[in-house]
Amino acid sequence: MVAPRVYQAMSQPVVGHLDPYFFQVVEEVRSLLGYAYSTANQFNIAISGTGTSGMETAVANAIEPGEKFALFTNGFFGDRIGEIARRQGAEVVRLSKGWGEPYDQQEAREFIRRERPRVVAFVQAETSTGMYNQGKAICEAAHQVDALTIADCVTSLGGMPVMVDENGIDIAYSCSQKGLGCPPGLSPMTVSPRALERLKVRKSPVHSFYLDLLQLETFYMGHKYHHTASATMFYAVREGLAIVAEEGLEARWARHRANHEAFVKGIEAMGLSMLVPEGHRLWTLNTPRIPEGVDDAKVRQFLLEKYSMEIAGGFGPLAGKVFRIGTMGYSSTAENVALILEALQAALKV
Amino acid sequence: MVAPRVYQAMSQPVVGHLDPYFFQVVEEVRSLLGYAYSTANQFNIAISGTGTSGMETAVANAIEPGEKFALFTNGFFGDRIGEIARRQGAEVVRLSKGWGEPYDQQEAREFIRRERPRVVAFVQAETSTGMYNQGKAICEAAHQVDALTIADCVTSLGGMPVMVDENGIDIAYSCSQKGLGCPPGLSPMTVSPRALERLKVRKSPVHSFYLDLLQLETFYMGHKYHHTASATMFYAVREGLAIVAEEGLEARWARHRANHEAFVKGIEAMGLSMLVPEGHRLWTLNTPRIPEGVDDAKVRQFLLEKYSMEIAGGFGPLAGKVFRIGTMGYSSTAENVALILEALQAALKV
Repeated sequence: MVAPRVYQAMSQPVVGHLDPYFFQVVEEVRSLLGYAYSTANQFNIAISGTGTSGMETAVANAIEPGEKFALFTNGFFGDRIGEIARRQGAEVVRLSKGWGEPYDQQEAREFIRRERPRVVAFVQAETSTGMYNQGKAICEAAHQVDALTIADCVTSLGGMPVMVDENGIDIAYSCSQKGLGCPPGLSPMTVSPRALERLKVRKSPVHSFYLDLLQLETFYMGHKYHHTASATMFYAVREGLAIVAEEGLEARWARHRANHEAFVKGIEAMGLSMLVPEGHRLWTLNTPRIPEGVDDAKVRQFLLEKYSMEIAGGFGPLAGKVFRIGTMGYSSTAENVALILEALQAALKV
Repeated sequence: MVAPRVYQAMSQPVVGHLDPYFFQVVEEVRSLLGYAYSTANQFNIAISGTGTSGMETAVANAIEPGEKFALFTNGFFGDRIGEIARRQGAEVVRLSKGWGEPYDQQEAREFIRRERPRVVAFVQAETSTGMYNQGKAICEAAHQVDALTIADCVTSLGGMPVMVDENGIDIAYSCSQKGLGCPPGLSPMTVSPRALERLKVRKSPVHSFYLDLLQLETFYMGHKYHHTASATMFYAVREGLAIVAEEGLEARWARHRANHEAFVKGIEAMGLSMLVPEGHRLWTLNTPRIPEGVDDAKVRQFLLEKYSMEIAGGFGPLAGKVFRIGTMGYSSTAENVALILEALQAALKV
């Protein structure tokens, strides 16, 4: 759900993409993003596309054809990063785990030391499994071999600690429609000075002109035309980030955590279990296992028709095995948790 | 300016990108786009990005590394197409004219027959110069050598005849914020069956996963997840296109033409002249020459401060030489033309 204030913000008159007022909004987004990402980075922008465009921007800028790209994957979005890196001409090496299975930190370190890649990518918040992947050991090992680090924070930003600087993430990207409670359409990103330096010494141009970070730096920081960024979507994201700042990151995380924990408690009281082991769960997206004999699609249709409630099913190997239930942003409330538990109980009885 | 109805449409509740209601909106956009582009094509979608993302989608899907890409350019956006094709690894050959100078049809045909390219691209509506480039001879010659044709319709769609089928354009792209009167953020596109067939026999994957048209076909036509398209922006574009259909294309073109002609008449009455020769001018964007001794930036600042009116300056070789004054979409009215002429007269006296 989108916060009413965000809808209001989007009805402000559109200004041009080179209007001084637009760049004032860009500056506010830049500074608020630094707060939301817990980073001192100066290059915090929003890519003019959805979360997947952010993923493509990170990968396409960081890697050059023929270079080694080390991927940690234990879910759908990890695999997608690999597909994007492959299309950029990278040599992709993988440390794969089952969907929803954590990495072993020692194994992660050894993998990076052995492969000595140019770029290391992992998914901090894996939307397909509801799993939070710890990134600190990965990033430390990556920096020891002088690799850049990329983290997918699509389902963590604004809902749980991303901690870009503390984790050592060089490029993090997210989306506007989850923890920030805006409509989809922009991909908030932060880029470390180290990553920017690396981009400046690329040997080949980035395949994408639209997503070329140095071009975007010239636009957002240098105020020179690159593309017609959407003032409307920037108004939305500024408002979403302002709400995060007003609530305060710590209070916001505590709210998400409390609602997530209440949800888990309710699920377990119903005799169901969670896919992801405790301590590795996202607070924003919950993946209870579907009990034997229950028809996934029927439950979701019942919820949509009787409760106007949209929950998601599992992807790939988890299809039919888990529900994916968001408790994030504006929608993460005790009332919503009580409502979904009640609705789910009713649906499972049908 | 954005039509008030479009702002209203954007305040509708966001639905998921796989929600049946979202695909209903997608279907309406598909059908309305076919009308606006004057095409029988079935594959009419909106790319989740701005006009430049549409340009990149067209080029990146149509060409493969090492193939010959023939470019017609007489302005900034023509040059940009070449830059994007180069980054895709294409061998770019050019027929260049001065900014705002028309192509000779015979020369265009000979160029294509001589080069025998795989793809031919031109800018129907060159936003940097205010020029309308006729595409029929180019597309005919291109099809004779079995090349795909791409046309940039960023400043023509919804304001003047694009005529995709009559001109023989295989891939046309535009933006949401000009002739359609919406905020920026989506790039409406149409793709011919011939182009789709060509995409299916590509030897190499498209470098971009985000902008891969066959992936987008699976999403928009096959309703399988690819990225989280923005329901909000689709509501806006549906509304913008519905307004086009209600007014009727012919009536809409007539309105744009009449307001453009009134503008030119006023400009000439003030003793100024137009950059583009008569018969080659856009009805949506006008480029009067700046008289000797007049300071471009001062005039624009005066208009912004005294009249809250934003007009653009020239780019590149036209910097300081022309104004770029839009009369498009919701803003193309007799009142606005009278107002800008009055304001410009006042500004030139300062």
